[in-house]
Amino acid sequence: MLEYTHVEGLSSADVTRLREIYEPLTESVRALIDATIRTEVDAETVAAVKADVDAATERLRGRQLDGPFGLQFTSDGAQMPWGNPVVGLRNPMAPPLVIHRDEDDRVYADFDLGAAYEGPPGHVHGGVAALVLDHVLGEAASNQHRPRLTGTITLRYLRTTRLGRVHAEAHIARVDGYKAFAVGHLADDEGVTVEAEGVFIQPRWARG
Amino acid sequence: MLEYTHVEGLSSADVTRLREIYEPLTESVRALIDATIRTEVDAETVAAVKADVDAATERLRGRQLDGPFGLQFTSDGAQMPWGNPVVGLRNPMAPPLVIHRDEDDRVYADFDLGAAYEGPPGHVHGGVAALVLDHVLGEAASNQHRPRLTGTITLRYLRTTRLGRVHAEAHIARVDGYKAFAVGHLADDEGVTVEAEGVFIQPRWARG
Repeated sequence: MLEYTHVEGLSSADVTRLREIYEPLTESVRALIDATIRTEVDAETVAAVKADVDAATERLRGRQLDGPFGLQFTSDGAQMPWGNPVVGLRNPMAPPLVIHRDEDDRVYADFDLGAAYEGPPGHVHGGVAALVLDHVLGEAASNQHRPRLTGTITLRYLRTTRLGRVHAEAHIARVDGYKAFAVGHLADDEGVTVEAEGVFIQPRWARG
Repeated sequence: MLEYTHVEGLSSADVTRLREIYEPLTESVRALIDATIRTEVDAETVAAVKADVDAATERLRGRQLDGPFGLQFTSDGAQMPWGNPVVGLRNPMAPPLVIHRDEDDRVYADFDLGAAYEGPPGHVHGGVAALVLDHVLGEAASNQHRPRLTGTITLRYLRTTRLGRVHAEAHIARVDGYKAFAVGHLADDEGVTVEAEGVFIQPRWARG
């Protein structure tokens, strides 16, 4: 049984203000992740930077949530999945994806994958493709009033995906009661690289 | 066509020295990611920390690789997948997994997933389970002389996986020419949560 963390009363002005506070920090930590992987500075500089990073972490931990971010809501019921590792604006691990939904309920995102997402040299880790596609298919299968979680997902790798600008998209193929069948793919600038299909299920606690 | 980045002549003493330099920084940045998601300090402190993080990044970028980490090798041919998002000791996104291989060629890892890996509140993002299982099945299907990349993978979610200590394992079910069929699962302290099976293929360039 999952319990959502409700934070009541955040107006859209509050959300905008919070975004302006936190998003720049997230982006800076994202750049630090990239630099941590790629740096070739000497051992003394690495040690000095480590000490500065520890000091930064300690300041942030001066006041913090007891556990993970959870799912917070605005006063009008919109979700704020800010800790999410794919789309979260407070999660430096997230590329992040900004997911759009067109008038046919097809969802898509264009985003960059750099050094932090590398598997085969110069290419996207197969598991990162799975991470992104699981999320995008789940997003296609859900809406904010009807969450659906992954039941099964199958990924077919046509070829390796180059690091850089990539595109992900998905849509619902059909719905059968509490189940939605979603399909989608990942593509780089030479075309589709990974195809995905999955069954997404409305959990019992969300069938109200 | 993939090209491996060969860095020649790293002795095991060199590797130990490099690990001692870089691993503490990676661990510190990993803690910073967690604090970035969970902090509730005021806007001024967030802005001050952001400036410190930017300064740290700039110092690291004083000398850095032109692109992603690639795949580097020691002088005895062992791989150093240090930039890898699942196992990389220089990648703060990686939990990281330390993968063991038993005498029956079964591979396994026990590791912690915290706030940065959250999907449903308090639980592991389904895509993170996919990321980890893709890597662990791939590891079971490969060895350092015979890399195999994901052809297809199917994940079946039995229930959501609680954040915290988790276990992943995989083994080869059978081999057919260039293809290996691998199976595995993810488990939390109440048992198996996600089952996976996949076909892993030795790429043409590695069939030499």
